[in-house]
Amino acid sequence: MNKSMIAYILGWILKLEGLFMLIPILVAIIYREHNGIWFVVVAACSLALGTLITHRKPESNVFYMREGCIATALSWMIMSVVGCLPFFLSGEIPSFTDALFETVSGFTTTGSTILSDVEALSYCMLFWRSFTHWIGGMGVLVFLLAVIQMTSGSNMNLLRAESPGPSVGKLVPRMMHTARILYVIYMGLTVILFILLLCGNMSVFESLTTAFSTAGTGGFGIRNDSLASCSPYIQWVVTVFMILFGVNFNAFYLILLRNWKQLRHMDEVWWYFGIIGAAILIIMTNTYGWADNILENLRNTSFQVGSIITTTGFMTVDFDQWPSLSRYVLLFLMMIGACAGSTGGGMKVSRFLLSVKSALRELNSYLFPKSVKKIKMDGKTVDEEAIRGINVYFTAYILLVVLSVFLICINGMDIESAFSSVLGTFNNIGPGLGKFGPTCNFGWVSTFSKYVYIFDMLAGRLELFPVLILLYPPSWRGLLKRSMKRKKNKRATTI
Amino acid sequence: MNKSMIAYILGWILKLEGLFMLIPILVAIIYREHNGIWFVVVAACSLALGTLITHRKPESNVFYMREGCIATALSWMIMSVVGCLPFFLSGEIPSFTDALFETVSGFTTTGSTILSDVEALSYCMLFWRSFTHWIGGMGVLVFLLAVIQMTSGSNMNLLRAESPGPSVGKLVPRMMHTARILYVIYMGLTVILFILLLCGNMSVFESLTTAFSTAGTGGFGIRNDSLASCSPYIQWVVTVFMILFGVNFNAFYLILLRNWKQLRHMDEVWWYFGIIGAAILIIMTNTYGWADNILENLRNTSFQVGSIITTTGFMTVDFDQWPSLSRYVLLFLMMIGACAGSTGGGMKVSRFLLSVKSALRELNSYLFPKSVKKIKMDGKTVDEEAIRGINVYFTAYILLVVLSVFLICINGMDIESAFSSVLGTFNNIGPGLGKFGPTCNFGWVSTFSKYVYIFDMLAGRLELFPVLILLYPPSWRGLLKRSMKRKKNKRATTI
Repeated sequence: MNKSMIAYILGWILKLEGLFMLIPILVAIIYREHNGIWFVVVAACSLALGTLITHRKPESNVFYMREGCIATALSWMIMSVVGCLPFFLSGEIPSFTDALFETVSGFTTTGSTILSDVEALSYCMLFWRSFTHWIGGMGVLVFLLAVIQMTSGSNMNLLRAESPGPSVGKLVPRMMHTARILYVIYMGLTVILFILLLCGNMSVFESLTTAFSTAGTGGFGIRNDSLASCSPYIQWVVTVFMILFGVNFNAFYLILLRNWKQLRHMDEVWWYFGIIGAAILIIMTNTYGWADNILENLRNTSFQVGSIITTTGFMTVDFDQWPSLSRYVLLFLMMIGACAGSTGGGMKVSRFLLSVKSALRELNSYLFPKSVKKIKMDGKTVDEEAIRGINVYFTAYILLVVLSVFLICINGMDIESAFSSVLGTFNNIGPGLGKFGPTCNFGWVSTFSKYVYIFDMLAGRLELFPVLILLYPPSWRGLLKRSMKRKKNKRATTI
Repeated sequence: MNKSMIAYILGWILKLEGLFMLIPILVAIIYREHNGIWFVVVAACSLALGTLITHRKPESNVFYMREGCIATALSWMIMSVVGCLPFFLSGEIPSFTDALFETVSGFTTTGSTILSDVEALSYCMLFWRSFTHWIGGMGVLVFLLAVIQMTSGSNMNLLRAESPGPSVGKLVPRMMHTARILYVIYMGLTVILFILLLCGNMSVFESLTTAFSTAGTGGFGIRNDSLASCSPYIQWVVTVFMILFGVNFNAFYLILLRNWKQLRHMDEVWWYFGIIGAAILIIMTNTYGWADNILENLRNTSFQVGSIITTTGFMTVDFDQWPSLSRYVLLFLMMIGACAGSTGGGMKVSRFLLSVKSALRELNSYLFPKSVKKIKMDGKTVDEEAIRGINVYFTAYILLVVLSVFLICINGMDIESAFSSVLGTFNNIGPGLGKFGPTCNFGWVSTFSKYVYIFDMLAGRLELFPVLILLYPPSWRGLLKRSMKRKKNKRATTI
């Protein structure tokens, strides 16, 4: 195992997080808040420690998938622990578990909160809370790749471990440039959203935090009623941008290049819009009469559908009160999630599509044993390895959900609430149904359950494998054996 | 498509069903019930029609998997429609939909009922209701194979389409003998159970119907409170036999042959007992204090666990009142189901095991790309084709459950009830949770929902593919093309 390389990456993560914290410090200065001092303390320690670790460059930068996964999982853990310290040290969130929950919920863009009164937080804390969404949305390791130079194998392995979706495509041959393009698009869209929100008479502070939460498909708001009291204009702007941030970013790159032909072949994106359209239609019919007029019905439905399928988790109405068909459609959207390569969570539309296609294929081969059918996606044949991987992902996903609900039920929670809250955290959405409906929070659950949710949020954001690997003994055993072998080889060569 | 062969099989099914109906006629004679006349009418028509159809032997008995599936699915449909006629014609179940629901629930060994007062039925109807469980448990086509001679390819295709589980093994080289051995074991166990129940001071009629329901892992009782008012001795006997009928029947054959070595290698059976043990332990701990003493707690828990995992659906206590952890464990057992090759339903322990194993394998190959790991089961390597099939089965299973819950929710049912009732019918268990708890029935749901449940019961019993094939257009298109091709070939050879 290339331990020094993993340490090097973790050091860089600490440095980056220290730098990111400079912005809430600025906010604290503007609003003259004394609590900003804790950001200074944490940022300073984080920068110092990071610089110390990254001082010595690793001897070898050979880096396998295994190490990429471990580095990614550890990065996210360290990021969360460091990120929660300002909340905890300042006493604004007095319990460490709660502070950690809130931060993990932020970085993983879940948006579940333990706070019952968000408006009581100071501005710098509110800012940091929303900013974690933005950092976590595109991924901090992707940011790292945009900043530092690595060998091509290692950065690919890091990107694969952190990026959402079954496969990662390079936009351009050099990974560093791919990462930069992604971040430029991400920033560009965020800035446009920010300006549009400003035009809607939103304050600068609220526009900025709302833009961060929307861009990361997170869902933390700075008001207790999320976006319910905002103007229809703001709600429409947020609806459109939530849906946009759930689109595969490659599509935006293709639009920039005016490559319409390849864009037309992006099956996933078209299905994504199709599913959104169908869901809006079904729910509008089902909740007919719940709104004053058809336009309000359309606005409320689009907002909630966009918020749930992109796993953002904002809300303008209490959809837990909707009839059960609509609630069920939302539950279904929760599981599917957004496109691969977007900032959204969930299982991803492409995985869903490929699962359905491979089920149909199997049915076909059951009927016509001699026929060989290939599965196509985006106009290309999908290789069998990827399909097997998706089927197994599906299985692992179900098993983890089943296990998590079991653990949550230990404290006697009813099954619907347990199930929907696990789906809500696992898919990085935020609110669920029942006791975790949009008007409720996670403050009251037991400490044990909170850690289950924290695990689910991380596992969901990193798409299971990087987190599962940490719990899988052979990955450690194999690594130990390898380093022993290497030592033996070294001895052999020095003799 | 070999249409004449399919018709021939359907004709035999009609004949067999007519013969089976002679037994309820006997019951009607013993109890001097006038309603028995309807069995005479239906049996006579069924026998006459069947004889007419099977009069001419089919020219060719070549038979592909596709035809096997279609024959199986159609057989079960015809069986159900003919089987429900006595209920409907006699007016004891006045609605045709209800009568069909009750019969499908019987043949598929689900055990869900639309009756609120079972005790109001006449003896011959009650008998037929329980007898359908026994007929459907081992499968009527398996019975057919034990009776008539077919070419080896065709009978294997029929057996594969009807038998529960991912793979079908022949016990002995000749399929007819395999089918006979299975039925002999099945009858033997039923007779032993019947005698043991008689010893517990149960009436002959009740012992017989209870034995049929237990053997088929069905769950229809002849009392409104299921088995709650029976003596502890009866409850224990039924518990043990429910669990036994959930074991792969190959195990019994191996016991008869005293082949202990091969028995030791039956992973599925050992896991099955392991899961039962673990579930009993968890629920006993969780419901500690709900029973008067530990022995009663053990009896109630074992009974409910055995009833649910084998998908029988009997009950002695209202488990819907249990704490949510216990209810959740039961929900989990519902999904897993019994062993392959038993009379139980559900996803089957072996599929569950193989899914978990292939997920672990994928994780491993993600970590160590160069390692090739084979999945073993029963001491043998499982081929990749089978694993892919199971993963796809899993996907199709989830998709069908999701779709069914959607359809049930249209009438505004709450999600927990909809979800658990779909699981209950799809896995052929019977009772669910919430509005479909063990003390409730399906009489009040809408006609549309009843047909959804009927579809689910059939799809679950035949393990998806045979039923899905009927809905899959290419299977018909392909067949048409084939028969056209054959005609062309015929012409070509006659010229």
